[in-house]
Amino acid sequence: MENKITKDWFVGFIEGEGNFHVGLSNTKNNPGYPFDTYPFLQFRIFLREDDEEVLQLIKEFLGFGNIYKKSLKYNRDRGFKAMDQCNFVVGNSKDLLKLKDILSDSCLFTKKKKDRKLFFKILDMKIEKKHLNEEGYREMLSLIGGLNSGERGNFKPGNNRKLYFAK
Amino acid sequence: MENKITKDWFVGFIEGEGNFHVGLSNTKNNPGYPFDTYPFLQFRIFLREDDEEVLQLIKEFLGFGNIYKKSLKYNRDRGFKAMDQCNFVVGNSKDLLKLKDILSDSCLFTKKKKDRKLFFKILDMKIEKKHLNEEGYREMLSLIGGLNSGERGNFKPGNNRKLYFAK
Repeated sequence: MENKITKDWFVGFIEGEGNFHVGLSNTKNNPGYPFDTYPFLQFRIFLREDDEEVLQLIKEFLGFGNIYKKSLKYNRDRGFKAMDQCNFVVGNSKDLLKLKDILSDSCLFTKKKKDRKLFFKILDMKIEKKHLNEEGYREMLSLIGGLNSGERGNFKPGNNRKLYFAK
Repeated sequence: MENKITKDWFVGFIEGEGNFHVGLSNTKNNPGYPFDTYPFLQFRIFLREDDEEVLQLIKEFLGFGNIYKKSLKYNRDRGFKAMDQCNFVVGNSKDLLKLKDILSDSCLFTKKKKDRKLFFKILDMKIEKKHLNEEGYREMLSLIGGLNSGERGNFKPGNNRKLYFAK
């Protein structure tokens, strides 16, 4: 029994737990950038804090990425089931390119396959500085809209929150 | 790029998505059994219906198990984010023993490692018919209590439900 992560294990694990995320940060205080939002890419794995060890193993296996802790006290205070989290995050383009390379010869089987494809296409566009011109920026926004699409399309925050926080 | 599930992929995937479950069914209508609840074992993977294909691949890889659909309309009607599910379930002892064998030389890295150990210990006890005598039954209940422990310990259904369904 080999006590080490293999690539296939890693791929299987991220099919369930990995998240290819492109956020849009507000650029109000960034007058040098021509658009309202600035796309930033993150590959993330969110686990409960009692599984931090596996994130350390993943970090060692990949050779990059960072681990952060996140308190979910806010949620607990509101009566929700929520243990603190530990998050593994790869955020810089150099490491994301390494991740792309590591995954390049791996087949994904879940709908994460589509997310991987979109995510690395957006990464390539950003590296090519397409987020700096109107046409490229619009195309990137459109691709971002298709990322993790089921989740976003299916989530109606207003509706949920009304129920969540009703007293 | 091999378009097939490997064992390492499967293990990585179930670290996130697999669930070693022991339920306790009510035995009120089963006068032949001496205790109030009857333990039944299930290895399960719950995914959204749009990932049913991967459950088919897992079923082919293992050579056993069944896939069921589950409607979550009840939750949607209450304003919750919920797509219908597809569930992969291995429930009979013969197949669970095969699963135990398949996983026997694989290392798990998350806290699912502990669940696997407890689950297959409970399976062995049930196969040895220990659930039919007081001592064995009590010991099994105690093991079941330790299964997926974080989740259960952290979950206060009354408290949550009060918030969820407040109008």
